[in-house]
Amino acid sequence: MPLPTLRIGIIGAGMIGRAHARAFRDVEASFQPPPARIELTVVADADRPLAEDAQTRWEFTRAATDWRAVAEAEDVDVAVVALPNFKHAQAVNALLAASKHVLSEKPLASTLDDARAMLRNAERAGVVHGVGFNLRRIPAVAALREMVASGVLGEVRQYGARYLTDYAASTHTPFTWRYQRSLAGSGALGDIGSHIIDLGRFLVGDITSIHGAALATFIRERFVPSGHVTGHTHAATTGEKRNVDTDDLGSFAATFRGGALGDLRFSRIATGYRNSAAFEVVGERGSIEFDTERPAEFQLYLESDDAAINGFRRVVVGPRHPYFSQVTAFPFAGVGYGYSETYMAQAYEFVRAVAENRPYAPGFADGVAAVEVCEAVLQSADQHRAVALGGVGAMST
Amino acid sequence: MPLPTLRIGIIGAGMIGRAHARAFRDVEASFQPPPARIELTVVADADRPLAEDAQTRWEFTRAATDWRAVAEAEDVDVAVVALPNFKHAQAVNALLAASKHVLSEKPLASTLDDARAMLRNAERAGVVHGVGFNLRRIPAVAALREMVASGVLGEVRQYGARYLTDYAASTHTPFTWRYQRSLAGSGALGDIGSHIIDLGRFLVGDITSIHGAALATFIRERFVPSGHVTGHTHAATTGEKRNVDTDDLGSFAATFRGGALGDLRFSRIATGYRNSAAFEVVGERGSIEFDTERPAEFQLYLESDDAAINGFRRVVVGPRHPYFSQVTAFPFAGVGYGYSETYMAQAYEFVRAVAENRPYAPGFADGVAAVEVCEAVLQSADQHRAVALGGVGAMST
Amino acid sequence: MPLPTLRIGIIGAGMIGRAHARAFRDVEASFQPPPARIELTVVADADRPLAEDAQTRWEFTRAATDWRAVAEAEDVDVAVVALPNFKHAQAVNALLAASKHVLSEKPLASTLDDARAMLRNAERAGVVHGVGFNLRRIPAVAALREMVASGVLGEVRQYGARYLTDYAASTHTPFTWRYQRSLAGSGALGDIGSHIIDLGRFLVGDITSIHGAALATFIRERFVPSGHVTGHTHAATTGEKRNVDTDDLGSFAATFRGGALGDLRFSRIATGYRNSAAFEVVGERGSIEFDTERPAEFQLYLESDDAAINGFRRVVVGPRHPYFSQVTAFPFAGVGYGYSETYMAQAYEFVRAVAENRPYAPGFADGVAAVEVCEAVLQSADQHRAVALGGVGAMST
Amino acid sequence: MPLPTLRIGIIGAGMIGRAHARAFRDVEASFQPPPARIELTVVADADRPLAEDAQTRWEFTRAATDWRAVAEAEDVDVAVVALPNFKHAQAVNALLAASKHVLSEKPLASTLDDARAMLRNAERAGVVHGVGFNLRRIPAVAALREMVASGVLGEVRQYGARYLTDYAASTHTPFTWRYQRSLAGSGALGDIGSHIIDLGRFLVGDITSIHGAALATFIRERFVPSGHVTGHTHAATTGEKRNVDTDDLGSFAATFRGGALGDLRFSRIATGYRNSAAFEVVGERGSIEFDTERPAEFQLYLESDDAAINGFRRVVVGPRHPYFSQVTAFPFAGVGYGYSETYMAQAYEFVRAVAENRPYAPGFADGVAAVEVCEAVLQSADQHRAVALGGVGAMST
Repeated sequence: MPLPTLRIGIIGAGMIGRAHARAFRDVEASFQPPPARIELTVVADADRPLAEDAQTRWEFTRAATDWRAVAEAEDVDVAVVALPNFKHAQAVNALLAASKHVLSEKPLASTLDDARAMLRNAERAGVVHGVGFNLRRIPAVAALREMVASGVLGEVRQYGARYLTDYAASTHTPFTWRYQRSLAGSGALGDIGSHIIDLGRFLVGDITSIHGAALATFIRERFVPSGHVTGHTHAATTGEKRNVDTDDLGSFAATFRGGALGDLRFSRIATGYRNSAAFEVVGERGSIEFDTERPAEFQLYLESDDAAINGFRRVVVGPRHPYFSQVTAFPFAGVGYGYSETYMAQAYEFVRAVAENRPYAPGFADGVAAVEVCEAVLQSADQHRAVALGGVGAMST
Repeated sequence: MPLPTLRIGIIGAGMIGRAHARAFRDVEASFQPPPARIELTVVADADRPLAEDAQTRWEFTRAATDWRAVAEAEDVDVAVVALPNFKHAQAVNALLAASKHVLSEKPLASTLDDARAMLRNAERAGVVHGVGFNLRRIPAVAALREMVASGVLGEVRQYGARYLTDYAASTHTPFTWRYQRSLAGSGALGDIGSHIIDLGRFLVGDITSIHGAALATFIRERFVPSGHVTGHTHAATTGEKRNVDTDDLGSFAATFRGGALGDLRFSRIATGYRNSAAFEVVGERGSIEFDTERPAEFQLYLESDDAAINGFRRVVVGPRHPYFSQVTAFPFAGVGYGYSETYMAQAYEFVRAVAENRPYAPGFADGVAAVEVCEAVLQSADQHRAVALGGVGAMST
Repeated sequence: MPLPTLRIGIIGAGMIGRAHARAFRDVEASFQPPPARIELTVVADADRPLAEDAQTRWEFTRAATDWRAVAEAEDVDVAVVALPNFKHAQAVNALLAASKHVLSEKPLASTLDDARAMLRNAERAGVVHGVGFNLRRIPAVAALREMVASGVLGEVRQYGARYLTDYAASTHTPFTWRYQRSLAGSGALGDIGSHIIDLGRFLVGDITSIHGAALATFIRERFVPSGHVTGHTHAATTGEKRNVDTDDLGSFAATFRGGALGDLRFSRIATGYRNSAAFEVVGERGSIEFDTERPAEFQLYLESDDAAINGFRRVVVGPRHPYFSQVTAFPFAGVGYGYSETYMAQAYEFVRAVAENRPYAPGFADGVAAVEVCEAVLQSADQHRAVALGGVGAMST
Repeated sequence: MPLPTLRIGIIGAGMIGRAHARAFRDVEASFQPPPARIELTVVADADRPLAEDAQTRWEFTRAATDWRAVAEAEDVDVAVVALPNFKHAQAVNALLAASKHVLSEKPLASTLDDARAMLRNAERAGVVHGVGFNLRRIPAVAALREMVASGVLGEVRQYGARYLTDYAASTHTPFTWRYQRSLAGSGALGDIGSHIIDLGRFLVGDITSIHGAALATFIRERFVPSGHVTGHTHAATTGEKRNVDTDDLGSFAATFRGGALGDLRFSRIATGYRNSAAFEVVGERGSIEFDTERPAEFQLYLESDDAAINGFRRVVVGPRHPYFSQVTAFPFAGVGYGYSETYMAQAYEFVRAVAENRPYAPGFADGVAAVEVCEAVLQSADQHRAVALGGVGAMST
């Protein structure tokens, strides 16, 4: 059977949009067998030079300055949305209305209402939809998920996770939409907390209640930048300051459907932590650990061995693990991999789902679930009480 | 000035009582200068052979089978209480009535009322009182406390801690008082959670509220042992089972007086974790990490250095750190130390406080505070809401 | 100034050839500014389907089955040689005769005579020449080299290195040219030992003597495969066995020009070690450590700090380190990177050298030097004595 | 059967003598069953206050200023020699002449002739004799030895070890006998290299040849102290300097009797390394790693498991490992242990051997073997060639 050709449009040409561009461009060459023929057709960014630079680099057919150009394009089958959170809903809904398959960055939306509407629209459109929780596609994490799902750990009892990063630790990190609740929904919670919420759902299952959450903001005002800011970097400033009303850090206890307890904390002002999303899953017969700062390994304990020679094993990820079937990127264990491979594996899985006309996971239902947990955390923190979640049906996998 | 002589009585000759016996016996020889002359006079345990074995080993003047023998002894200045939690109150109160200086194991009591009464009695008696939160005396932890207190980390923003151990992970670990709420007060929470609660208070300050707590019990019944059980080990069983009504694991969010957020989790059924009490303290200008499984080192990040060469430093504890002034135990860095040195440093500090007639920290007020946090955690978990703590005044240091 | 266009031919479409193909294809897109416009024109491999598959994946203009097609091509400016070691000399010399710029895999040749002739030919041709010691291009290693060269460690006194891998640990790993001295020159020594020899030269300087070397072969015969073998993987076998006359493992002491001592060991049958090339450089005022299994971090000790808070720092590599100026691959620290980025950085540097018409390092002189050390090691092991090296002049950098 | 009583004399009241004093004093109390009743009778040191301080601390019957007092004492059964290396021979020989059981510090002697004479004298005296290679008594090391000996790793193929420490890294570390070849025999080689030589013999077997060694001295003169120096610490100086003619660092390749290759390096000026004696043993079916800086754990890889979930296990040493049968020191895994426990386990084993009238290992034959390797290393370094060892018969265990 000949490979289908999929035409890709990418909305957003900043740091994350570029990661997607590179990933989709490399998917066809890197995987064995390739999931589809890929054509990069449109890249859109309000910043024209940025869009045109991306067009040149990854050989898109054309660049545009308005995301509508992607929604309206005849020659786009799959659209990737890498806009600021608060712009997801409008763009995604327009893309769905145009029957595009949509991979949206996380969190799916700034509000639960928006997220739910997006899910309804996606289901109505009958397209493949996904949320960019790329950590699921780290080969080590994918291997751990298989392990937990296979029952090798027995009953899961505890999920402990932290996401500590220092991108906003400096008082000179400029004010952006991330620091404004009306646009971002929340701060560290939605931006990085959502990753470990999704990993918890991926590994353990649905979260059914938040037992109590605490959020705090320590850097209460930030300088307004005088120009465009890409990523989290320092920028020229007007000297003016604005109030920050989103959380810098927080933590909460949770219960999963199967009875396991969760304990999650996150901070974007964690001095000294470059980008550590780490978790442990403790089960009846075994336990696992992982940290994004050492993405090519995981730790595994299996109770079955003689205790005198037993301990957590440092497993270096290699050809026997997910995403190592591809030709070039991961030739043998012990050479490392990272961010670019993770995006490539995400693109691969999304393209494969579209090519094979089946759902992608994490889909919008997972995106809704993560937003729902975030809202429950905000509510729990505001009202000083536990909050039960309605549930959005079974988690997709 | 000649050294005072202090006469020591130890109540409990099990695992922990023995650690104290060895520690007090070694204090005089090991520290430079010795804090006092030490005489071991009475060791008491309901199990006579156990008491007599301890007497022989550490050359106590005599053994007894009733803790009252220590309270009534003329030749005891300092009493150490290493009984099951639920027996602390009665013994400690009797010792205080007899004007003994008292070092009680943790948690101070099974109920907050008991703990408060013990504090009042201690203050009335005018003696030196302490609680066996021995982790404060790990040289690495003592060094970190000095560092935090000196302000080198700046404003503290987050305390994340976990205490994971597997002592009760086997379904064959026998039923004891630890699994009965009416005796133990709580399970993992009071037994090991109290350690990281105390460390949080030691490093960061008073806890002012619990935002939400979750507790769970997974092994819901255990075999009744047919004989005496020392430590947590397996034992011959009658075949009969009893219900467990204390928690196996849990977690909670907290706020410290200065505004820092705390996130704590604990489990006594954490498959694969031998005994890991680990924490991170994230500050404005630096961060620290520590784990009891590697007790002779700590991790330190200081923002002040050039970011291109900066990262967490693994500091191997040595002669420039607390408790290395002594002659024999820690000759140079990189040779390791452990449990025995920690108890020895605890004995040293307690003896020094008595010899110099000044308060010991952690004192009973700290013991009360830890019990208060535990009760608030239980309440929060039961009532599904945040709980504010009354506060017991300034933490001693 | 407009970017020059460089046309790339790649000889070898196996595991390593593919890594080069992907790297050269991505260079233009990934670096800011791009060092050149890149066109992939010819990929050659004796295995036609392999060559054609590579052609399709990375969009080469054409595929060929004979490396001569690259040497003879008008539309090739830069040739990459990823053949078995013993075929390097013939192909490289033909490419040089055709005035191609040449990046040859390591070791440069199976014999010192061949390597020296290749160097002479390259100098005569006046082209840019390089050897594929890609570990120099790991961002962490490049950062460490800058650090050592800047003098921050003071006088370097010791270089300790090990390269342990298990690719040949199974008795079922098939017999190939790697196990035949007449073709391979040596075994683990040339294959992986040469990497840590080159890293020693890169970080510390020329090696002036080998003090004594020991080599050993433990798996003394291997099964002859019935078909083509890519990489090190198991293969169908004829049942026939052949003798192995190359080393499985070895070690040696060395002296560097500045007086530092080197200690190197290597094994390709190191049970449990996936691919660990690790080293420490101990200097007068500081020390460093690195391991390929955790390629995105390095350890650094600087004597200048107060000893009580000093230790090896785990530096997570990020935007302030070499090769992070590029747009997409390494967006921020703590997301990991690996093999593919290393090859990409190698392609980037080689293309840049060609575009700017200046020497590349490691050049063929470095390739000769590594072969010379390997021959001295073989001689030292055979003759049970120290061997002084002639030296090949100043190391390029 | 009643326990025998053993009377202990200790020669040397400095850092190491004190470690022995504390260890012997604690043996009876700490082990279950105690190996003997212990009486500390004489402690001797040329520095009278030091001797008297030790007498008071560990309750020796008396102090002396001349080691002859121990040799001549009626009430000494077991003598421990913790003198500078070059004084071992005379004292040990006198003790043997007086039929004392002797535990001598390492290296056994400064010259091979001396060491051999001491062995002959010990055999003639028919007493129990031992050398203070205390690293064998680290519980993790003892466990690893059992594992290797049981064959779980299969054929051993490689022993890689390093001992890096910084005790002499400062140019202000004062001149002592350690820096004078006529007294010390060698520098880092004999002082710390001998430890990893002995560990190699303990774990792998006899060393049969040295393939080439390199030694170097970087700090070529040091200040003469004006007074007594204990340990390696800085001291008041006369301002005068003396030449150092012992090695600061070195490395060598070796062959073990079974065919395994050894690779050892050592340095006493290793900036940043507090005290890291680390090794790996690579076998046919498994591999192990250990580092003294984390003495309570070891790493183990066993080939037998599925490769996809296999890796080095971090085994935390606990009650199922050697020396945890004792009552107080190591109650459960994960609480750490260190230097003091190691000396205590050494004292325990030596006392047990005396009480049971059987040889102790490492005995003087092992001491001779280590000195022989050191002399071969010196000879290999001087003569630039490989050196075969005569062998001293089977290693004791």
